[in-house]
Amino acid sequence: MTERRYDPTTGEWVTFATHRQNRTYKPADDFCPLCPSRADGGPTEVPYPSFEVVTFDNRFPSFSPAPPEPAVPASVLYPVEPAVGRCEVVVYSEDHHATFADLDAERVRMLVDVWADRWEILATEQSIRYVMPFENRGSTVGTTLSHPHGQIYGYPEIPTRPRQELAAAAAHHRSTGRCVYCDVAANEVASGERVVARAGGWLAWVPFSARFPYEVRMAPTSHHSCLPELDDPARDGLAELLSTVVAAYDAMWGFPLPYVMAFHSRPTDGSGEWDPISHLHVEIDPPNRSADKLKYLAGSELAGGAFVTDVAPEAAAADLRRALRRAAS
Amino acid sequence: MTERRYDPTTGEWVTFATHRQNRTYKPADDFCPLCPSRADGGPTEVPYPSFEVVTFDNRFPSFSPAPPEPAVPASVLYPVEPAVGRCEVVVYSEDHHATFADLDAERVRMLVDVWADRWEILATEQSIRYVMPFENRGSTVGTTLSHPHGQIYGYPEIPTRPRQELAAAAAHHRSTGRCVYCDVAANEVASGERVVARAGGWLAWVPFSARFPYEVRMAPTSHHSCLPELDDPARDGLAELLSTVVAAYDAMWGFPLPYVMAFHSRPTDGSGEWDPISHLHVEIDPPNRSADKLKYLAGSELAGGAFVTDVAPEAAAADLRRALRRAAS
Repeated sequence: MTERRYDPTTGEWVTFATHRQNRTYKPADDFCPLCPSRADGGPTEVPYPSFEVVTFDNRFPSFSPAPPEPAVPASVLYPVEPAVGRCEVVVYSEDHHATFADLDAERVRMLVDVWADRWEILATEQSIRYVMPFENRGSTVGTTLSHPHGQIYGYPEIPTRPRQELAAAAAHHRSTGRCVYCDVAANEVASGERVVARAGGWLAWVPFSARFPYEVRMAPTSHHSCLPELDDPARDGLAELLSTVVAAYDAMWGFPLPYVMAFHSRPTDGSGEWDPISHLHVEIDPPNRSADKLKYLAGSELAGGAFVTDVAPEAAAADLRRALRRAAS
Repeated sequence: MTERRYDPTTGEWVTFATHRQNRTYKPADDFCPLCPSRADGGPTEVPYPSFEVVTFDNRFPSFSPAPPEPAVPASVLYPVEPAVGRCEVVVYSEDHHATFADLDAERVRMLVDVWADRWEILATEQSIRYVMPFENRGSTVGTTLSHPHGQIYGYPEIPTRPRQELAAAAAHHRSTGRCVYCDVAANEVASGERVVARAGGWLAWVPFSARFPYEVRMAPTSHHSCLPELDDPARDGLAELLSTVVAAYDAMWGFPLPYVMAFHSRPTDGSGEWDPISHLHVEIDPPNRSADKLKYLAGSELAGGAFVTDVAPEAAAADLRRALRRAAS
């Protein structure tokens, strides 16, 4: 059963993909489906003996180009839609034991191009209204395959959080005539106290109202609405800054920090109205509030949608800058 | 540092309470702050040698009646407010090793009265606009004290998720003239396939668009906007149904299922406009998708706000009904 169901009590669509209950779950290293297919092992999902970066359709997709008809009938109260869209896998390296931090500068730059290319291709599909490249790193955030990889979802609607961001950006634009991320980036550069690092026109900072203690956002300081708009120097800057931020995370407590990293861009519904208010940015949410404690989403966050955070963003930024100096020395 | 900061890029308030980083964390049983104060042990947070149910202010509050002034200055871009409000603890039993499922009918009924009374008292406070009783059960959802207890937060604003629900309810009311939860409850009673149990005018069901695989919602089938409105039979029904649902959860896989349980009611901002669209309900979110696997919030959920679920709600309801029959036999 694969379908999208609308919740009339929240205004949200939820996607059901019951076949995912049986997806590959933490296989032994010898049976990793994301490793190259080599003569001495069985075939994997990558039919090459060697590769740099490879993308393909997820074998257990939440959304697909020709989804089955919904199993339940739709009604006025309960709308139902086919789970049309795309779920792609992006494998970062053929090295099973690598993490993002092990990728060299050239490989990360190649990844930026891959994300930009796949975003552009998926953006042209009629049924896709929002494209989101993301990475879940570490079993703490539920990663079931340890091989370094990310994913790209092509959604048939603008999902809840980007929609909420666009509403906030539209409100800011109405009252000031400006893009909110342009204002926020300028403000962070001016104050500096929450800045983690800068590179090639890109800024990384701990947001003033971070939901997660060590949350980092990254954005170009000038206005761009999506990855394909970036020129070569801006792509170099993004690649360098991603490596820098992940190095800071991993140096902070001496282990690869789990995180969820995602790109937010303009919707791909063909409307030009988003361009002035959609500012490309990266959101990185690590679940840790210290080396050995997690920030759990419990009553206030899950049922209230109200985040309570234990670490001051200014202190988190200082921690990350210190970690970065240690990593560099 | 305790303060609320506004995120202009999302339209959300985030609360910072850095003193909570040092809150009591999984103390040994002998040092539980929620046990009674007995002659043979040190004093706890409950200055009585014995009790049934007790409520008091959280020692490490996110919100308090006289919060400190914010540490950072507010600006037009970044509004800041004191974290005014209330955080209360509700201890369910003096038995350190009990869980909700161990409470007898009389105790659960007493709890319903305590929630209703505290809701009514906090609702009168000028600075509080939303009161949410909730319980986090189990270390999987981050509970740091194992003694059976819940919490009540009095928020200075309507938090994001209730606000989103009210917007959806208002839209439904505009187009139909009816309360969405009244319609949903009637629909669930009529179809029956997602119903888990009923008691005294209350219904428990797996929502048509459940975010969590074994999510349950509970609501009175007739329109009530808050706990104090419930008469004695309706309170008995709520108490009985809560015990029934928790018994089903615990019987399903033979262990106390972790969950986040929360009451959603009308806002307490003094506006009468909410009454026709605010339908009292309980949301219960267990993190498990099977006995040994969790539903993690990762890229799609955290960064996209788009839930993808592996279990059909109709199958989850059947699982819970089966568990209930086993528990009863």
